[in-house]
Amino acid sequence: MYPFRDENVFLRNAWYVAAMAQEIADGPLQRTIMDKPVVLYRGESGRMRAMHGLCPHRNYPLGLHGTVEGEAIRCNYHGFVFDGENGKVVDIPSAANTPMRFCQKIYPVVERGPWVWIWPGDPDLADPGKVPTLDQMKMGDGFVTSPMMEPMHANARYMLILENLMDLTHISFLHSMTAGFDEIASASIEIEETEGGMIVTRRMDAAAWGKYHEAVFGEENRFEGKAQSDNEAMTVAPGYFLNTSQTIRSIDGKPVDPRVYGEVWFHHVVTPETKTSFHYFGTQTRNFRLDADALGEGLRHADTRVRAEDIEAVEAIERQLVQFGPPPVELAVRSDTAAGKLRRLMQRALDAEAAMGEPKAEAIA
Amino acid sequence: MYPFRDENVFLRNAWYVAAMAQEIADGPLQRTIMDKPVVLYRGESGRMRAMHGLCPHRNYPLGLHGTVEGEAIRCNYHGFVFDGENGKVVDIPSAANTPMRFCQKIYPVVERGPWVWIWPGDPDLADPGKVPTLDQMKMGDGFVTSPMMEPMHANARYMLILENLMDLTHISFLHSMTAGFDEIASASIEIEETEGGMIVTRRMDAAAWGKYHEAVFGEENRFEGKAQSDNEAMTVAPGYFLNTSQTIRSIDGKPVDPRVYGEVWFHHVVTPETKTSFHYFGTQTRNFRLDADALGEGLRHADTRVRAEDIEAVEAIERQLVQFGPPPVELAVRSDTAAGKLRRLMQRALDAEAAMGEPKAEAIA
Amino acid sequence: MYPFRDENVFLRNAWYVAAMAQEIADGPLQRTIMDKPVVLYRGESGRMRAMHGLCPHRNYPLGLHGTVEGEAIRCNYHGFVFDGENGKVVDIPSAANTPMRFCQKIYPVVERGPWVWIWPGDPDLADPGKVPTLDQMKMGDGFVTSPMMEPMHANARYMLILENLMDLTHISFLHSMTAGFDEIASASIEIEETEGGMIVTRRMDAAAWGKYHEAVFGEENRFEGKAQSDNEAMTVAPGYFLNTSQTIRSIDGKPVDPRVYGEVWFHHVVTPETKTSFHYFGTQTRNFRLDADALGEGLRHADTRVRAEDIEAVEAIERQLVQFGPPPVELAVRSDTAAGKLRRLMQRALDAEAAMGEPKAEAIA
Repeated sequence: MYPFRDENVFLRNAWYVAAMAQEIADGPLQRTIMDKPVVLYRGESGRMRAMHGLCPHRNYPLGLHGTVEGEAIRCNYHGFVFDGENGKVVDIPSAANTPMRFCQKIYPVVERGPWVWIWPGDPDLADPGKVPTLDQMKMGDGFVTSPMMEPMHANARYMLILENLMDLTHISFLHSMTAGFDEIASASIEIEETEGGMIVTRRMDAAAWGKYHEAVFGEENRFEGKAQSDNEAMTVAPGYFLNTSQTIRSIDGKPVDPRVYGEVWFHHVVTPETKTSFHYFGTQTRNFRLDADALGEGLRHADTRVRAEDIEAVEAIERQLVQFGPPPVELAVRSDTAAGKLRRLMQRALDAEAAMGEPKAEAIA
Repeated sequence: MYPFRDENVFLRNAWYVAAMAQEIADGPLQRTIMDKPVVLYRGESGRMRAMHGLCPHRNYPLGLHGTVEGEAIRCNYHGFVFDGENGKVVDIPSAANTPMRFCQKIYPVVERGPWVWIWPGDPDLADPGKVPTLDQMKMGDGFVTSPMMEPMHANARYMLILENLMDLTHISFLHSMTAGFDEIASASIEIEETEGGMIVTRRMDAAAWGKYHEAVFGEENRFEGKAQSDNEAMTVAPGYFLNTSQTIRSIDGKPVDPRVYGEVWFHHVVTPETKTSFHYFGTQTRNFRLDADALGEGLRHADTRVRAEDIEAVEAIERQLVQFGPPPVELAVRSDTAAGKLRRLMQRALDAEAAMGEPKAEAIA
Repeated sequence: MYPFRDENVFLRNAWYVAAMAQEIADGPLQRTIMDKPVVLYRGESGRMRAMHGLCPHRNYPLGLHGTVEGEAIRCNYHGFVFDGENGKVVDIPSAANTPMRFCQKIYPVVERGPWVWIWPGDPDLADPGKVPTLDQMKMGDGFVTSPMMEPMHANARYMLILENLMDLTHISFLHSMTAGFDEIASASIEIEETEGGMIVTRRMDAAAWGKYHEAVFGEENRFEGKAQSDNEAMTVAPGYFLNTSQTIRSIDGKPVDPRVYGEVWFHHVVTPETKTSFHYFGTQTRNFRLDADALGEGLRHADTRVRAEDIEAVEAIERQLVQFGPPPVELAVRSDTAAGKLRRLMQRALDAEAAMGEPKAEAIA
């Protein structure tokens, strides 16, 4: 399926954000991740739990009015209860005292920062040590997080948003009303491959002091002269991307004080739902003006508007793909280098996973 | 198609409720029954009529603004008129005096109680004497009917609701807020096969005097001590099920006066619309407190809420089946005995009907 | 696909109305024509432009917030610019000074009257001289146009509306509340084949002075006696039909003054969108009472209601076709002569176009 070679489009052996922890505050959450039904809930001990989301009795979604009992979850249809640790059925109201060997599939799950991470692939390969650290996520010491954005959702294949993130020249046009500035489209690009993906750096002469600078750095830090700035986009995990809008490196050739002109990181968290839809989570973190709550609110507000534009764009493209088929040709230009590289990396990883064979059966052990 | 062996899922040679008579009060009604278009209307003589629902001229639905003329129906597109008795085209406005031999398919139809029954299968096999009697429907002498519920509809394969009705242990969970009580899930079960289906009886110790008893039997009939009660579910016709919530049989071992502690029957009338949707009609009848109109209204109100929960459940399951395919395994427990038996009975009947070959052509004679 | 022999249902080598010019007043318009994406816009010179509607870079619809620059259009995603004259990519913001040979497909386009005409087929065959003249469209000298109706859209295969237009006996039934009168269903028919289609004339005795006459001809022109009137339907282009409701030819055998009892033409402009949907444009023109603005408004209002009934009808039929498949038989009667002829003419033309082979590639030259 475009832009991949075949219908195998999910890279399952990796950690993905299944939900924001705050989404699970009021009880179990039913969610589709990579075409599989999952139920997420917090046991009474406080531990996060992730389980195959359909009751094996009558296919009822466990997250639909399901109730937490200890570390277990009770199905709301006929009351079957499954243990959150090993998936074992531990109570069947209409058949008390019947020994049951059945086990529901359990997903490896880790809660870190504002996120609930799960491993959709082979559980034997899941290493909790590979969940990105707070430092890797630019959420560790020295950083503060804006109020969390509402979870978003788009009816589009997830590669459309990843390619959007890898080619930020679109900011000058798609976001001309919200975040755009002309210089970004023509900036020079450097791409560095990393273990889990890549870092794309655009170096440019920032516009002179502008609206964005004023909102972010504050009126009192107005600068004169020409700033040199970077726009970075980096892969933290297969579905976790960070980028900056502009990080000021120097003004008139002189390095700046990073405690004044610091970094704002935009978190783009993309988890495939189905082959043609994805969950989209996000926030912003910064390492300066830590107490400026209004700045955090302002970033959140602006970012929400920007992402609505991105979602409108990828959903429009998805509709064209469905209606008219994959494009017969694609013009590729310099700014597509990173997106093209990502496609090839992803296709290679998909092929490697396919070569490992089928993952274990879903619902039974 | 799950839970059946193949795509043959409709048992056509039987009487089904196509509509509530009151739905046809204001003119013709277009309705899909088992993937066939049907128009229902009352002729001027008062007789109910059922006909293939598409005009053979331009495929226009006869029930869409069609008008009744005598026993005939006139199509609203180009005005063709079809006789309700034999389906003959009897007027073509643009071709007056042209002799026409065409006959529209007519469905055998019987009006009984609040229902319009049709026979979707081979008309030669239709025996009006096999339409359930009012006594069989617990609507005859000694019974009074609650105000009719609005006709309901669900986007789910009809077997999901039949299996729901055959395993009432779900009442303790799905309906915990509306009708549930704990004892029902663990009651003992007796199943008796009948000609048209089965009777499932759950015997249990009813809770002591509770809210339901008070609403149904009235404050003045409050009892002390332990009641023994039955919950029955029975097949009246392939798509017509009756059940009681609790029928008090004895209190502290002494039989009760059935004129005081009588029977309430819930009518579950399920007619397949398409392979993945069904019509759902219902009411309640009782044989005590016949003049208590508020009781009838209360039963109707409570039942409407309960069925909304059932519809939410089966529609949720249907969506899972569509999205994730049929379940790879199904845990079956004691309370599934009746549902399992029903599946086997239905599959056997479907096979038998398939062996009889195709029914006659739809639209033409 | 019903009513045609195979899936080849679009006659591409002809002029079609892609839009009303007024739809393009506020910027580019994205529209699907015969299963192809098209963007329409007016260049700064005032010339109308029509181009393949997807950007070849990332499949983004050019009409979605695209901006006009001179005669060119700029994509709103990454800012690629395409020339409206030859489709050449003339600017790529992230790759300035890169010579590009790519050309986007350009559609031949002509603006005439209130319409934007395009030629969806082989551009080499497009002859602007074949676009219907204003006189052919009954919009030339001596005619005045009612205020334009809003563009309409229907989810139905376009042949359903063409056959509706070819058999006006439906007016007596479908439009009985809005425009119907009984005589039309039984009028005599004459059919004359023309180069581009046909003229269908129904001759009838008009009802005596009625509501329609009063609205159209005015109270002061009330006539007594029996009028003889024609109802004409004619093909102006494959998707452009004109009809009159009633043109008075004589009263009591005496010819009438055409400056008093003139012609009202209803413009039915049908352009296929997909195989199962069409655009529907329309207005009315008349050659009498040219200054009676209220008459124009009244005709527009009445026609809007009539077309809503037609759209309800063809959408209902389309749903039946999707749900129940093509009709196993079709009763054909005298009033279907013109529709039947049209089907055969269309099928023959479709076969002829198919024999010419594939049109040129869509997006690239």
